[in-house]
Amino acid sequence: MKIDLIISADDIKEEKVKNKTAVVIDMLRATSVITTALNNGCKRVVPVLTVEEALKKVKEYGKDAILGGERKGLKIEGFDFSNSPMEYTEDVVKGKTLIMTTTNGTRAIKGSETARDILIGSVLNGEAVAEKIVELNNDVVIVNAGTYGEFSIDDFICSGYIINCVMDRMKKLELTDAATTAQYVYKTNEDIKGFVKYAKHYKRIMELGLKKDFEYCCKKDIVKLVPQYTNGEIL
Amino acid sequence: MKIDLIISADDIKEEKVKNKTAVVIDMLRATSVITTALNNGCKRVVPVLTVEEALKKVKEYGKDAILGGERKGLKIEGFDFSNSPMEYTEDVVKGKTLIMTTTNGTRAIKGSETARDILIGSVLNGEAVAEKIVELNNDVVIVNAGTYGEFSIDDFICSGYIINCVMDRMKKLELTDAATTAQYVYKTNEDIKGFVKYAKHYKRIMELGLKKDFEYCCKKDIVKLVPQYTNGEIL
Repeated sequence: MKIDLIISADDIKEEKVKNKTAVVIDMLRATSVITTALNNGCKRVVPVLTVEEALKKVKEYGKDAILGGERKGLKIEGFDFSNSPMEYTEDVVKGKTLIMTTTNGTRAIKGSETARDILIGSVLNGEAVAEKIVELNNDVVIVNAGTYGEFSIDDFICSGYIINCVMDRMKKLELTDAATTAQYVYKTNEDIKGFVKYAKHYKRIMELGLKKDFEYCCKKDIVKLVPQYTNGEIL
Repeated sequence: MKIDLIISADDIKEEKVKNKTAVVIDMLRATSVITTALNNGCKRVVPVLTVEEALKKVKEYGKDAILGGERKGLKIEGFDFSNSPMEYTEDVVKGKTLIMTTTNGTRAIKGSETARDILIGSVLNGEAVAEKIVELNNDVVIVNAGTYGEFSIDDFICSGYIINCVMDRMKKLELTDAATTAQYVYKTNEDIKGFVKYAKHYKRIMELGLKKDFEYCCKKDIVKLVPQYTNGEIL
């Protein structure tokens, strides 16, 4: 099995994704939100690229649909929830359809549509994602959402963590140099938080007063579920 | 001063390079060859993209022109020299014009043409490049040639080394996450060689029996010169 890594949503090239197992990562915070919401009983997540599309979709899905996401890290006007995983508790998401649009994460999901399987990864469910990767037994590309089309330390180390979880389960792996480097960065910073503090994105999260979100998004193995994106929906 | 990093010749975007100081890196081995040849008295290096172009240029430059480069790491038929820095000794390069085409390095140089200044960097001249960066006092983008359009560990750690040399000279620096990560990888592997061994490109170099080239290309600060590319020529 080969594992490759794409550093941001802007760097996705179809030939790198096609027919593979894609793992989309936007640990601060889109893929942590999706994982948390589904784990708390949300029925499905529908990622869309624009606010307009979100407002259209919410009508299509009817009364059980809720709106979540962010622009510049902040809640969008008229939306029910922001991009904070802490808001997506069981009492508000159970049985609901979450229509979601974020700056980086939803673009990375949509950009990976030619993959055979699309998994949603985060630190929260890293072990479960690795389990699923082994089960699918196909070449893997880890797609980092990045931040505004740039390489982002948070997603890179999260990728390294997931690669490391796969290595614990499977000996015969071929990593590209990008994947090897991500695993190295994780392996030398296993607490994750210490290194994420060097990320530009971390500074933005702190400016917005989202320290609790940050702490939560760095927790390993608290979710056993692996969200999968198929035909426009994450289940 | 800001320092950014582009992971491969395929990932160059004009807006990331325009009007900046670009530092092109292909440490194994094009930029080590260029640095070595000029340091040994070569008059100029003319990088071109194709073998056809090289054969045309060599006629233009006349009797003092020599041909060097590689395809798949090997010497090109009809060329005088391969891509091994060891071949470019004073007795063969002094006063000559080297017409050169390589798989990754020359593409990275050509792709950086919108930069204000284009410096040629390697481990060999890392300290001198840092000195020049400080002198130019402009935002910097380090352009990794990469290997066949991919992120390559050798160029990434070499970038980290040069960034570290700049940090030794200048306190107020703003690094992108990619630049921060490269500097981290270097800082935790200061001998360079130990980490380059994880590179796919390293395996290729060893398969070709080029261990001596590898050892040479990892030597720090043995060249005090900084080649600069202007109007099609490196001086």
